[in-house]
Amino acid sequence: MNIDIIIWLDYIGTAVFAISGVLTAGTKKLDLFGVMVIGVVTAIGGGTMRDLLLGVTPVTWLQGYEYLIAIFSGFLITLFFKRFVAKMRRTLFLFDTIGIGVFTIIGLEKALNLGVNPAVAVIMGMTSAVVGGVIRDTLTNEVPLIFHKEIYATACITGALFYLLFRWLDFPVALNELLTVGIIITIRLLSIRFNISIPVFETPES
Amino acid sequence: MNIDIIIWLDYIGTAVFAISGVLTAGTKKLDLFGVMVIGVVTAIGGGTMRDLLLGVTPVTWLQGYEYLIAIFSGFLITLFFKRFVAKMRRTLFLFDTIGIGVFTIIGLEKALNLGVNPAVAVIMGMTSAVVGGVIRDTLTNEVPLIFHKEIYATACITGALFYLLFRWLDFPVALNELLTVGIIITIRLLSIRFNISIPVFETPES
Amino acid sequence: MNIDIIIWLDYIGTAVFAISGVLTAGTKKLDLFGVMVIGVVTAIGGGTMRDLLLGVTPVTWLQGYEYLIAIFSGFLITLFFKRFVAKMRRTLFLFDTIGIGVFTIIGLEKALNLGVNPAVAVIMGMTSAVVGGVIRDTLTNEVPLIFHKEIYATACITGALFYLLFRWLDFPVALNELLTVGIIITIRLLSIRFNISIPVFETPES
Repeated sequence: MNIDIIIWLDYIGTAVFAISGVLTAGTKKLDLFGVMVIGVVTAIGGGTMRDLLLGVTPVTWLQGYEYLIAIFSGFLITLFFKRFVAKMRRTLFLFDTIGIGVFTIIGLEKALNLGVNPAVAVIMGMTSAVVGGVIRDTLTNEVPLIFHKEIYATACITGALFYLLFRWLDFPVALNELLTVGIIITIRLLSIRFNISIPVFETPES
Repeated sequence: MNIDIIIWLDYIGTAVFAISGVLTAGTKKLDLFGVMVIGVVTAIGGGTMRDLLLGVTPVTWLQGYEYLIAIFSGFLITLFFKRFVAKMRRTLFLFDTIGIGVFTIIGLEKALNLGVNPAVAVIMGMTSAVVGGVIRDTLTNEVPLIFHKEIYATACITGALFYLLFRWLDFPVALNELLTVGIIITIRLLSIRFNISIPVFETPES
Repeated sequence: MNIDIIIWLDYIGTAVFAISGVLTAGTKKLDLFGVMVIGVVTAIGGGTMRDLLLGVTPVTWLQGYEYLIAIFSGFLITLFFKRFVAKMRRTLFLFDTIGIGVFTIIGLEKALNLGVNPAVAVIMGMTSAVVGGVIRDTLTNEVPLIFHKEIYATACITGALFYLLFRWLDFPVALNELLTVGIIITIRLLSIRFNISIPVFETPES
């Protein structure tokens, strides 16, 4: 997997995140504008948070047209093929999972390049992948999905840790990226397939 | 409209946004402190988000006393003339609309001066105008008003596009600003007058 | 109180904020991951917001392992001694209050060192202390606690104003810090003891 593939997967992931934001918002009686804003924040929320925390400004998606085009493509597809897209949720889910893997790697590598320590880099990888969904749920007045369902962040963290391991073992970058995305996708798919979730944690009421 | 007028309208817009935040929060059984915080974030939320995304730090309202004084004036007016202000909603609405227009232009010009592309600049103009209200609604546990009611962001975007057009046509800046604010105000007032809203967008449940 | 003590109190405050985040989230039927994220944002939310607004990036907690270790310690304590910690709420409350005082001073000093004006510095001190709790409540779909209950922000602001007064009177820094933390703790404890709260502010419905 060379750098070009990662970049293209990043754009595709962005478009798919935008579609998923629009589909979620579309069940909330919002108008077209609201739905599009939710699509945008779902798509770029994670990368934006990562860039802000690390001090990369203007944040990445403001530096060119690429991400705007990716998001806009996601919108057009959803608007014109609404019924079709809603039926394709399984396919979307796969791309969404690939997007999560790619976003994790991009966040991780960006953080490492900026010289933060590995633990922080893992957190930045996860942040890139999950914060968009957290903002989406907060804006639509829901408790974020990943706080009570879905092995999602855990998949990102596990993948990121393996990335660091492979890097320490001097694996070539392209191989490392391929393995990491594979691990993240595998964990997520297995957790869905076997209905595995993280246990609820409860503390006694005060 | 010279630079001074824009700046003064910016301060007045900030004060009016603070008042609108306080009025909204005042229906939520919050204490005086909570109400004031909601007033502050309504007033400076949009400009803050714009500055953070573009990398302008310390964010504008931290660079002097002007915005704090504008917000504080808004508070004092609301505290001492609560009943009067609540009755003046129509007048407030007009100033609020002027504020939206001015915030859009300021965000747009700031972004263009920083060298981002026009599409991003339009988004930054809209961000300046609408994010304060989005944060206000999120903090008071509501789905943001502009996601399901009101032609508001659409007015900003349309105005911003006309600004770019007039700029490309080499209109003098002052005239361009005047026309843009006029367009934004007109669209918003007409949409309210004729009860025009953006259609709800719904997707099938999963 | 020399610089070392402030730093150690900062770490302890961070751990206690993480514990308080976990305890709050633990009543919301979230999974272990969600609970931990809420713990993290409660612990670092205030300092992060302060750093972003002031332009300090990477934000402080990303610059080393110290804050991550503090937060992780808080997690371990809560996970392994859940029942004990839940019973210790009174002791926790004391440390929480100390944390608030320390966070206020750190935010205030950081802002003053960056050359912003005193009014902004007071706001940054308060931001450091309260924003973590605001994000915690927003993510768990509650109207932030400090907007309708608890003398908390008021204690921070009062403490910060006294800090500025003592600084203007040329008190030694260590004495000033000690007095300020003392004032913040005293106001908060007295307000709880005598059940003092800020009056609710209501405006007529539109």
